[in-house]
Amino acid sequence: MRDIGPYSNYRLTVRLELANKPGIFARVAALLAEEQANLGAVDLVSATKTRMIRDMTFDVRNEEHGEKVVTRLGELPDVTVLSASDRIFLLHLGGKIRVEGKYPIRTRNVLSMVYTPGVGRVSRAIAQDKSKVYTFTCKSNSVAVVSDGSAVLGLGNLGPEAALPVMEGKVMLFKELAGIDAWPICVSTQEPDEIVKIVQGIAPGFGGINLEDISAPRCFEIEQKLKQSLDIPVMHDDQHGTAVVLLAALTNALRVTGKQLGQVRIVVNGLGAAGTACCRMLLAAGAAHVLGCDKEGIILCGEAEQLRACRTDLRACFTRDSPKGTLRDALKGADVFIGLSVGNVVTAADLDLMAPDRIVFALANPDPEVSPEIGVTHSAIFATGRSDYPNQINNALAFPGIFRGAIDVQASEINEAMKLAAAQAIAHVIPEGTLSEDYIIPSVFDKAVVPCVARAVAAAARASGVARRRAKADDSPILE
Amino acid sequence: MRDIGPYSNYRLTVRLELANKPGIFARVAALLAEEQANLGAVDLVSATKTRMIRDMTFDVRNEEHGEKVVTRLGELPDVTVLSASDRIFLLHLGGKIRVEGKYPIRTRNVLSMVYTPGVGRVSRAIAQDKSKVYTFTCKSNSVAVVSDGSAVLGLGNLGPEAALPVMEGKVMLFKELAGIDAWPICVSTQEPDEIVKIVQGIAPGFGGINLEDISAPRCFEIEQKLKQSLDIPVMHDDQHGTAVVLLAALTNALRVTGKQLGQVRIVVNGLGAAGTACCRMLLAAGAAHVLGCDKEGIILCGEAEQLRACRTDLRACFTRDSPKGTLRDALKGADVFIGLSVGNVVTAADLDLMAPDRIVFALANPDPEVSPEIGVTHSAIFATGRSDYPNQINNALAFPGIFRGAIDVQASEINEAMKLAAAQAIAHVIPEGTLSEDYIIPSVFDKAVVPCVARAVAAAARASGVARRRAKADDSPILE
Repeated sequence: MRDIGPYSNYRLTVRLELANKPGIFARVAALLAEEQANLGAVDLVSATKTRMIRDMTFDVRNEEHGEKVVTRLGELPDVTVLSASDRIFLLHLGGKIRVEGKYPIRTRNVLSMVYTPGVGRVSRAIAQDKSKVYTFTCKSNSVAVVSDGSAVLGLGNLGPEAALPVMEGKVMLFKELAGIDAWPICVSTQEPDEIVKIVQGIAPGFGGINLEDISAPRCFEIEQKLKQSLDIPVMHDDQHGTAVVLLAALTNALRVTGKQLGQVRIVVNGLGAAGTACCRMLLAAGAAHVLGCDKEGIILCGEAEQLRACRTDLRACFTRDSPKGTLRDALKGADVFIGLSVGNVVTAADLDLMAPDRIVFALANPDPEVSPEIGVTHSAIFATGRSDYPNQINNALAFPGIFRGAIDVQASEINEAMKLAAAQAIAHVIPEGTLSEDYIIPSVFDKAVVPCVARAVAAAARASGVARRRAKADDSPILE
Repeated sequence: MRDIGPYSNYRLTVRLELANKPGIFARVAALLAEEQANLGAVDLVSATKTRMIRDMTFDVRNEEHGEKVVTRLGELPDVTVLSASDRIFLLHLGGKIRVEGKYPIRTRNVLSMVYTPGVGRVSRAIAQDKSKVYTFTCKSNSVAVVSDGSAVLGLGNLGPEAALPVMEGKVMLFKELAGIDAWPICVSTQEPDEIVKIVQGIAPGFGGINLEDISAPRCFEIEQKLKQSLDIPVMHDDQHGTAVVLLAALTNALRVTGKQLGQVRIVVNGLGAAGTACCRMLLAAGAAHVLGCDKEGIILCGEAEQLRACRTDLRACFTRDSPKGTLRDALKGADVFIGLSVGNVVTAADLDLMAPDRIVFALANPDPEVSPEIGVTHSAIFATGRSDYPNQINNALAFPGIFRGAIDVQASEINEAMKLAAAQAIAHVIPEGTLSEDYIIPSVFDKAVVPCVARAVAAAARASGVARRRAKADDSPILE
């Protein structure tokens, strides 16, 4: 399932005008070889007696390297660079998503049924019984992917326009992995109350709300207010998607190392959106010894029952003003380290303070809390957020199935029971015999994941009383 | 191009269990014939020695008639109705629109380019130069179709959920006719200022805003505030789409009757959203004699130059408290009647008060201001909003091309010059020699309409200085 080939993050296509004489192409190829720019496709665009125009595609190391190669190509005699383009930017031209009607409108007959006057009958039916909006509209399968651009990936506050390509990517994943029709909503304000009002305002047309890339602590307040006021599932994926996948990975890591969640000592470093949600999820799942660290040191510790009781607003338990020790203190004898902070804050010596058979999840992006070279050699099980090492903790394992399951039963919310069920479902996609130190979490391309998660989430929604429908409606004729 | 077959507004499919013996099917067919329920498809679902299950599709006159037929079928001996469904409702099951990614995500390589980490480079590029959001995201081709459900079709204030199937139909038309990726946004409030804030809030991700089915006079304020505050095209289609198509139809009707817009006397009856916009458009196009009537009588009249000067807020010129006469007074000697009011308010005698070669546009839905039987015999040119008579004045002739043209040049607004250009373009799709009393306006399925309108609108946007791009970007490699 895994494909650890080189990322094509920096693949260029350049259009060159070359003098049509022997040796010119060889000169270009030699330069690319010298620059270790791996040559891919070469296309002939046009040729005359004196000139040839070619498109050449090659990989470079990064943007600076790409610019250098293009500049050097332009300095070659008898070579002119007509244009240079970048594969990732090319893929984004005009956006990555589109809307389609389910039926072509080519005749007045169809037009009269999907639009006026026929659609008026459907509108009247919904006006008489609002629950029919789920039966007869796209609300039954749609999710708004909402961001204010305040925390775009790991890049910071880039604003709503810059968030849009990320949200489009998320929309693609919703469709590809879960068959959900999502649409990106990038909002023009970063005021929590205004964001809440905007999302409340557009909620009638959507079956669910996925909050994304909204910075902490604003994200807590926004999600909380939306969950309280809306009757559709609302989930801030940076918090809960991450927490669910972490719990799944930890569940399997503990199976591999033969330890119990209720007994192990867990250190969570970084108490932003994801870290706080992770602590909540661990406590909900039965962890008894959780220490939370931030830059200040240990700012979350205490009796498990006490922490568990206040887990819906864990920040109230933080002791930011009087840290109870350092991260190194926390690591002494710990079984599990979960990093949701920044790169390279943990050393080999730090890891050696931990208990034997230690589990280390270093999820900072792009550089993990401890370098993978050290991590893999100083732990029993090592996981990161990166796809170029085994055990990638990837949100895309959770959110598609969670929303699929919630939407299928018209759940009014996504609650803790549903998230715990999702984590267990993800963990158990991997059969016991197949589990290993390097395989504690399934691939995002594992087709079994979303159906398993959706089924578990739907069942948990029913069991916890938030499902409004027993099962996904089939499309058989309906009794009017 | 025209297809005036019967609407399939009331087509039922029933699943029947029939005793498997001779004569039973004939009994069913006879009942349908007796009810004048025209039989369409008959499918065999399953059969045993004793029972057959069949799906039968037939047209009925209306919902009551459908219920009666189904009840009578159930009363036949040896016949059981297992289910009965309605074609329009069936077409709406699960909604009528979907979202698709432009690329499948089947490998980590693609995932790493359309989502993290590759997409981060695109986000950074947009953060550095916000105008690139048009180059690299769906904003380049997307329109939000916004409604509060306060005036759904002619059905009144049905609320946002009931508006959703109509907005989905509009989204289908945007795609089918203009290749635009629209998405329905049904808002939870009917407070104008709150709607304005919601639409402002979601604007960063959309290339345009189509307001729809929002009641007057709230629609004027909402559109006005959005136009002032946003830098993307905003258009309330019920106002301007209708006005543009009316002007196009009138242009051709005048060509047929050999009259001049600047000379004819025009009566507009009904001064809601569409009627007011229609008066504005007529004045902008050069009409000199416009009388506006409402239930109170003539409440808009005066010097053309004076009216034209205040046409952006025509309501300020209304004299609601002191009407200057009745609709009948207005009709005396008038050349053109434009009805945007309610059904059956004009009689044959009223029409006979008008000048010879009169033009009558009766657009109330579903019943026109004057019955078509009277209208066609008492006017030179008669048009309605209905597709079962010639000369259908249909908004779908205007909005797809207007938005296509505006978006293609990244217009910052849709201004009067662009709307006038759209009307002229629609009118001139019909070649001079082909024009006739029964063919003053092209079909919505005429493939020439949208390209002509889009080109004219884009040119007008450039000429009026609101275009931010010379032409639609091609997808050739871009210089980084």
